[in-house]
Amino acid sequence: MIVGVMGGGQLARMLALAGQPLGIDCLFLDPVADACARSAGELLRGDYGDEDRLDQLAHRASVVTYEFENVPEASLRRLASRVAVHPDPKALAVARDRWHEKRLFADLGIPTPPFVAVDTHADLERGLAAVGRPAVLKTRTMGYDGKGQRVLHDAADAENAFAALCGSPLILEGFVSFDREVSLIAVRDRLGDTRFYPLTENVHRNGVLVQSVAQPGDPMTAQAEDFARRLLEHLGYVGVLAVEFFQKGHDLIANEMAPRVHNSGHWTIEGAETSQFENHLRAVTGLPLGATHPLAAAGMVNFVGRLPEAAAVLAVPGAHLHVYGKAPRPGRKVGHVTVRAPGEAELRKALARLAALAASA
Amino acid sequence: MIVGVMGGGQLARMLALAGQPLGIDCLFLDPVADACARSAGELLRGDYGDEDRLDQLAHRASVVTYEFENVPEASLRRLASRVAVHPDPKALAVARDRWHEKRLFADLGIPTPPFVAVDTHADLERGLAAVGRPAVLKTRTMGYDGKGQRVLHDAADAENAFAALCGSPLILEGFVSFDREVSLIAVRDRLGDTRFYPLTENVHRNGVLVQSVAQPGDPMTAQAEDFARRLLEHLGYVGVLAVEFFQKGHDLIANEMAPRVHNSGHWTIEGAETSQFENHLRAVTGLPLGATHPLAAAGMVNFVGRLPEAAAVLAVPGAHLHVYGKAPRPGRKVGHVTVRAPGEAELRKALARLAALAASA
Repeated sequence: MIVGVMGGGQLARMLALAGQPLGIDCLFLDPVADACARSAGELLRGDYGDEDRLDQLAHRASVVTYEFENVPEASLRRLASRVAVHPDPKALAVARDRWHEKRLFADLGIPTPPFVAVDTHADLERGLAAVGRPAVLKTRTMGYDGKGQRVLHDAADAENAFAALCGSPLILEGFVSFDREVSLIAVRDRLGDTRFYPLTENVHRNGVLVQSVAQPGDPMTAQAEDFARRLLEHLGYVGVLAVEFFQKGHDLIANEMAPRVHNSGHWTIEGAETSQFENHLRAVTGLPLGATHPLAAAGMVNFVGRLPEAAAVLAVPGAHLHVYGKAPRPGRKVGHVTVRAPGEAELRKALARLAALAASA
Repeated sequence: MIVGVMGGGQLARMLALAGQPLGIDCLFLDPVADACARSAGELLRGDYGDEDRLDQLAHRASVVTYEFENVPEASLRRLASRVAVHPDPKALAVARDRWHEKRLFADLGIPTPPFVAVDTHADLERGLAAVGRPAVLKTRTMGYDGKGQRVLHDAADAENAFAALCGSPLILEGFVSFDREVSLIAVRDRLGDTRFYPLTENVHRNGVLVQSVAQPGDPMTAQAEDFARRLLEHLGYVGVLAVEFFQKGHDLIANEMAPRVHNSGHWTIEGAETSQFENHLRAVTGLPLGATHPLAAAGMVNFVGRLPEAAAVLAVPGAHLHVYGKAPRPGRKVGHVTVRAPGEAELRKALARLAALAASA
């Protein structure tokens, strides 16, 4: 069976590596000739809006999925008229636009920071009055890894940020001084069977995820699963969904969702009975879901910019290296390492060693 | 880094899938255009003796390894004069010939069945007198999965078997009425660091492995590790080595060795901290070895001839499917499933369900 994937980056690569043992071959559409997924599947090189390429993808694949949110709407419509597309394009339409996303959270009773759409300077003034300061001004679309957003502490910040970002539709959100950031990776199949991975605690630096640690039995689990389930059921969702939350006190506040496999779920490759990549493929192809329980204490460190020496990484007990085959570049995710450890203490020790290697690379 | 692999079958495919996350790309030499490893790496199509192809492999790869024993000696010599070859070709020279193999076992004090080389009818007569009946007449080279061997119960069997097999150099071995068959997967790196996976209990049918179950803590472990260590050290071995034993009472009797990753170690992909495929690549490329301890109760069922329905396999708790991308054919290994279970009882139950699926495919 062939699964078409919009995008040929590291998420597509890890999907394809999970697919091969199942007899699932991935076919990627990506404009970049050396898209890193090409080592694990076949690359169709073309723009995401190239109609011939989209038709080839639809013709050859039994189902199409995606590894990023910013797939052009017209491309999704074209694909969906020819082949099954999972998750449903409406999940992507919501996730692509921060305002629609927050609107849906609010409609489903999922707490969010206060937010307002900002198109004009007057909107910004009114917005700041409504949400207070500090606040965060973000582009509604195309933002990732902290790109397209500015924190506003005072009037000067607001002017500068508006000047830098205006031209795109914007959203102003109240700044959440959170206690921690967590994410929930969920998966739902075509029949509605739904599984959740353990809640994951995440650390970002400059807007980029640097570390995740699985938190089986976390007291916030039930709240997170309740909120994720509302989204999955409302959207008739099929595949892996990631929801990122801020935690403040005993409350979760939804930050964003990603209708795809997610960096904070990379630890599941070795750390869970079935990885998020395999379960996404199982869901979209109609195979039964695999168990999501953790196998051990597990966590992940991202390699951003450059890779450390493989030998140094692999000398850490329980370390499992994942390089993406991408050229080094500041701020770019080029690999990660997951750790599987017999207990929390060993896990923390290994993660600290790996974080030091990541920092010195 | 590029690792050259002689052969492009399922072992090469699983090596390549283990290599990609480490940043290791596999380059296969195989005469078959649709060699199943091609989905996970680059295929050089050519005969194993094709000098141009061998030189390409040696030129492009940092190290060359193999997935089968019957690599022509001249090819190995040519490769080894141009690039590092691991495991050392002398290990392969031993394993390729059952007589040399048994001779080495005996020289190292590793028990074997009684054996004699058979070239002539007179050798056969003398051999039968020496080893007794029943006995097994085998080709010294090119045998696998029960091919090229006959059990001799009486004089008529002996005549028929000799008539069928003569023309190849033969070996006559005493038949071992064993209590069980076990194998040990070992790995040794360039610095001599050596690790052993748990002893594995195997079941063959018609000479083909059908099921393996890991046996951590098995009372025969020390004896098996002692014998394997003698081989590893004598051969200055680098990479994964599999040794198959018969157990009779409290004794292990060495049956054969395979200087490569081995079917009875497939359960390590999900069942051990580091798979045999990853550890073989780590060893031959000079990376530190990974831990070999089991993660759970683990076992494997082979799919021979045809694959069962993926959905039925994946509905079994803890089942992990591995298809090889090979066309169905009677007697051909086309995939396997590994099971990871919380305990022995759950493992046995899952293996029984999977064996039934395998049998009805």
